[in-house]
Amino acid sequence: MAITMYDLAGADLNRRFSPFCWRTKMALAHKGLEVETIPWRYIDKPIIAQYNWERVPVIVDNGRGVVDSWAIANYLEDTYPERPSLFGGSAGRALARFYNQWADTFLNAATSRLVALDIWNHLDPRDRDYFRQSREKRFGMTLEAYCADRETRLESFRQSLEPLRQTVAAQPFLGGESPLYPDYIVFGSFQWARSVSPLALLEVADPVNGWRERLLDAFGGLARKAPGYW
Amino acid sequence: MAITMYDLAGADLNRRFSPFCWRTKMALAHKGLEVETIPWRYIDKPIIAQYNWERVPVIVDNGRGVVDSWAIANYLEDTYPERPSLFGGSAGRALARFYNQWADTFLNAATSRLVALDIWNHLDPRDRDYFRQSREKRFGMTLEAYCADRETRLESFRQSLEPLRQTVAAQPFLGGESPLYPDYIVFGSFQWARSVSPLALLEVADPVNGWRERLLDAFGGLARKAPGYW
Repeated sequence: MAITMYDLAGADLNRRFSPFCWRTKMALAHKGLEVETIPWRYIDKPIIAQYNWERVPVIVDNGRGVVDSWAIANYLEDTYPERPSLFGGSAGRALARFYNQWADTFLNAATSRLVALDIWNHLDPRDRDYFRQSREKRFGMTLEAYCADRETRLESFRQSLEPLRQTVAAQPFLGGESPLYPDYIVFGSFQWARSVSPLALLEVADPVNGWRERLLDAFGGLARKAPGYW
Repeated sequence: MAITMYDLAGADLNRRFSPFCWRTKMALAHKGLEVETIPWRYIDKPIIAQYNWERVPVIVDNGRGVVDSWAIANYLEDTYPERPSLFGGSAGRALARFYNQWADTFLNAATSRLVALDIWNHLDPRDRDYFRQSREKRFGMTLEAYCADRETRLESFRQSLEPLRQTVAAQPFLGGESPLYPDYIVFGSFQWARSVSPLALLEVADPVNGWRERLLDAFGGLARKAPGYW
């Protein structure tokens, strides 16, 4: 029986933009596990309340709900050890955590500043008030103010990717010759932006973009086929 | 025969402050390899010119010179595979590279802004002009201007450590239950600061400081016994 996954969707049900859900979808593909995604919107929180959680991804595997993308990756690794490893061993699993925290606190925050208003524009109308109110409270300003001057901000965003750039200039993937879960963690942020915003966060010739292109092509173009801009 | 290592020293020959040399010293200790360090100053560049290099660390092992801390770590891992692994396997080695680039481009740059003038103050007088001129050219301003308002800058520095903080709040070391080379990479930056500056970069209760304390204690207190401030 395929794994079920609740996957954040926009007004267009095919537009799946959550960076955390992308981590999980890439991880499931890496493991070669079939997944049936269920489009989910913020108004659908009651649907996942049974898992004592109010964010996605949530996966249901053989009747068991697992929440939180990091916990899901660990669950998949432990439950399907005979399938391709997401971490390449215990050291790799430990070393993956910093990538998770770096993406959560630094990369997603910087990306949000560039695309938050685009997200709002792609939401189902019933999700818009919730998103605007919760984010404007968190950011301490309107979405419009938060995303103002983003072209100016883009330059420093690109500069801040230098550690990532140097890494993927030296090896094809963060995981080495082939991708590991840390690749999917970081890729999720770029796929989030691609899903909702026409603003190309990366220059075409940037090694980070070359790495991103390799991941867009992975698993038969899973991420490339998804609705997005660049 | 013990490995020989050229190790950057201050006016006090026992004050060894290079973050890159600290990475290597911790890696050598992790491997249980004896090392004889040779204090080295910027004026000693001719001494290592035979290795076609002008920075330290340089190690000499059985007559073979190896330069660059990242290359040295890889050399030690490949040359002494029967000793405790620095990377925990090929996935760990690949995933270590981003830590190296993150520390080189982000963490060391941010730390430099706090301690560069302290470094100058601890240099042998014959090194001071070289250091000042080369750094002021790189920074585009005097050392005094570069390090001005550092107490103000300290707050944002600490905030920028959030990915590291969340990681070592969740597990004892970046490498998991015990340290791996990425721990030494990042620790090197803090040991650099500790060696030259009375400015405590971390609050005592910060989980990052707890992690740093564990590494100060490692290998019989190798790093703690070294001259330093905090």
